[in-house]
Amino acid sequence: MYNGVKRIAILGSTGSIGQQSLDVIRSFPSEFQVIGLAGGENLRLLEKQVSEFRPIMLYSSVKPGFSFKGEFLSMERIASHPEVDLVVVATSGKTGLGPTLAALSEGKTVALANKEVLVMAGEIIIQEARYHQAQILPVDSEHSAIWQCLMGEQNKPNRIILTASGGPFYGYSLSKLSEVTVKQTLHHPTWKMGKKVTVDSATLMNKGLEVIEAHWLFDVPFEKVDILIHPQCIVHSMVEFADGSIKAQLGFPDMRLPIQHALCYPERLFNSKLPSLDISKINSLNFEPVEYSRFPCLGLALDAGKRGGTYPAVLCAADEVAVQLFLLRQIGFLDIAPLIEDALQEHRSISKPTLNEILQADAWAREYIEHLYPRSCGGCK
Amino acid sequence: MYNGVKRIAILGSTGSIGQQSLDVIRSFPSEFQVIGLAGGENLRLLEKQVSEFRPIMLYSSVKPGFSFKGEFLSMERIASHPEVDLVVVATSGKTGLGPTLAALSEGKTVALANKEVLVMAGEIIIQEARYHQAQILPVDSEHSAIWQCLMGEQNKPNRIILTASGGPFYGYSLSKLSEVTVKQTLHHPTWKMGKKVTVDSATLMNKGLEVIEAHWLFDVPFEKVDILIHPQCIVHSMVEFADGSIKAQLGFPDMRLPIQHALCYPERLFNSKLPSLDISKINSLNFEPVEYSRFPCLGLALDAGKRGGTYPAVLCAADEVAVQLFLLRQIGFLDIAPLIEDALQEHRSISKPTLNEILQADAWAREYIEHLYPRSCGGCK
Repeated sequence: MYNGVKRIAILGSTGSIGQQSLDVIRSFPSEFQVIGLAGGENLRLLEKQVSEFRPIMLYSSVKPGFSFKGEFLSMERIASHPEVDLVVVATSGKTGLGPTLAALSEGKTVALANKEVLVMAGEIIIQEARYHQAQILPVDSEHSAIWQCLMGEQNKPNRIILTASGGPFYGYSLSKLSEVTVKQTLHHPTWKMGKKVTVDSATLMNKGLEVIEAHWLFDVPFEKVDILIHPQCIVHSMVEFADGSIKAQLGFPDMRLPIQHALCYPERLFNSKLPSLDISKINSLNFEPVEYSRFPCLGLALDAGKRGGTYPAVLCAADEVAVQLFLLRQIGFLDIAPLIEDALQEHRSISKPTLNEILQADAWAREYIEHLYPRSCGGCK
Repeated sequence: MYNGVKRIAILGSTGSIGQQSLDVIRSFPSEFQVIGLAGGENLRLLEKQVSEFRPIMLYSSVKPGFSFKGEFLSMERIASHPEVDLVVVATSGKTGLGPTLAALSEGKTVALANKEVLVMAGEIIIQEARYHQAQILPVDSEHSAIWQCLMGEQNKPNRIILTASGGPFYGYSLSKLSEVTVKQTLHHPTWKMGKKVTVDSATLMNKGLEVIEAHWLFDVPFEKVDILIHPQCIVHSMVEFADGSIKAQLGFPDMRLPIQHALCYPERLFNSKLPSLDISKINSLNFEPVEYSRFPCLGLALDAGKRGGTYPAVLCAADEVAVQLFLLRQIGFLDIAPLIEDALQEHRSISKPTLNEILQADAWAREYIEHLYPRSCGGCK
């Protein structure tokens, strides 16, 4: 437990998770102090955040037009700064890799929301965390649930059951899926998330990435991670133990709840601004098996995870580009998976890759798809 | 963790929980050694258990007709014997009080299945356990679930949600309830239990006793214990924390699972002989609010628990006698609650009672009802 104020750096503060993290922090002014922020291209928002939270360190991916009295530093420098207690890595894609490693190498606690960090470089990241006895606290609702279910357990889980909302198109036929629009895809029935994650949630790629993440975070083999569709998004995941006992974590579907859990851990604090689940009002919790055939991205992710090497990096990069092409209306919803599959098939994986080899695989996948869609993909890197 | 074989004494070995405890122990011959048994009037079964498990200490409530090479001792002496590591208190009614206190006063771990021990004398029992740093491990599926959900948590629960099957008559109208037979009552839809508990489960008295038990075991006020009807008996109970997170424990409804959890704790061991829950086959988990009006025993129990003093002892004694009268077909199903209510109303409670005062209240309640049913209740004491 921290004896004073927890000093936080938020990387990706202008994104969805970053904003929601700051929203949680706003509720506990005596618990947290934001000492570092790193934002993307939304400079107006970044300026507002700086003026409200007054960090001493700032990173901006573009030159900011506002004045800042503190230090401009790289994300790596912010993440590993001696005064930082906890780093929220809420960047997206491969951006989080370097800062996460920098934070872990200084023994910082990392609240990790950037899935790709573990998917692309799980082995390297976990080794670094172990070596420096640094904690990685999951922010994803599913992994937060598993983490909570594993608390105090001396025994390894027998099985992890990741729940999945199924996204907006669960139950759609393939012909219906072929017609879905970008607008429909961005309208998730339950979760409020960034665009990329919302599309990944509709293709179930998101769930595939989460399986790989769970594999690394909780040291469980892929065969022991199951997925169960649970449209209500109330049971956030479950853990089964050797003796057949299953623990589940439930809560209102609001990302600020798992964010707060990671920020406050090991404390649990009441936050009057967050919605709470009245379990006595829940009449039923429904579950159904996952349909792999209509959501091929899921199978691609699981295969890439199991094959390891640089395949997961290619999966992430190809997915990022394919989703971008879909959002630019260059390809249809059902074109996302074949594009990723194509890249994975063409890729020559390297086993036990270095960070550099992982980044090279990422670059290769982007170039490979750019080659297929030469004009439209300029802004995808 | 124990470094060798855990040496167990089972009090009430011929009852339902006692037999199921031995069944679990049978699966792990290298983990457990049964060194003490205490049985009731089923001497044939007790003889079989003695010949199979070869305890060194034995108690029998009636003179056994078989030879035994070990020592005949009282339940208190068995429970507090220096060689015992863990005592399973699977007796019923007030019988478990003395042996539980004896075990705790020697710092033994007690796996407690005898609800009345905590209901009647919660304050005394918990104080004794704290003073001697002895552990009380719950065996009831609900309390086992709560215990599992609280593992590793530094924070007190905000709310405990006890699930209830509702028993065989949930949803019945009062007129339908007035006609239920003993045979119907003893046919519980899910759980395999002793007769007394099965009737208590049908009146929901059992759930009321469990609320009082939860109050003492987990140090939560009565206002923070809720009940939710869950006919499938898969979610065994839930815990809500200050931050709105809820943890639930699920499992196949088989008492041997929570028994094994208490016996093996902190280990979780695979037992091929026990049924396991395939969570992927569960389509829905249903919950509904509890109907206090048709199950007045529940309200009587909650009131007695809140009022404290010797009321809970009177509640237990009156319920035991009333259930016995029902099983003897002297009274109807709907007569159970008024009889208990009558005794509670007539009782003059003592606050902060001693063990002796608790036992006097128990005797008073039995005599009071015997006075109302003079001839039929000879065997109820």
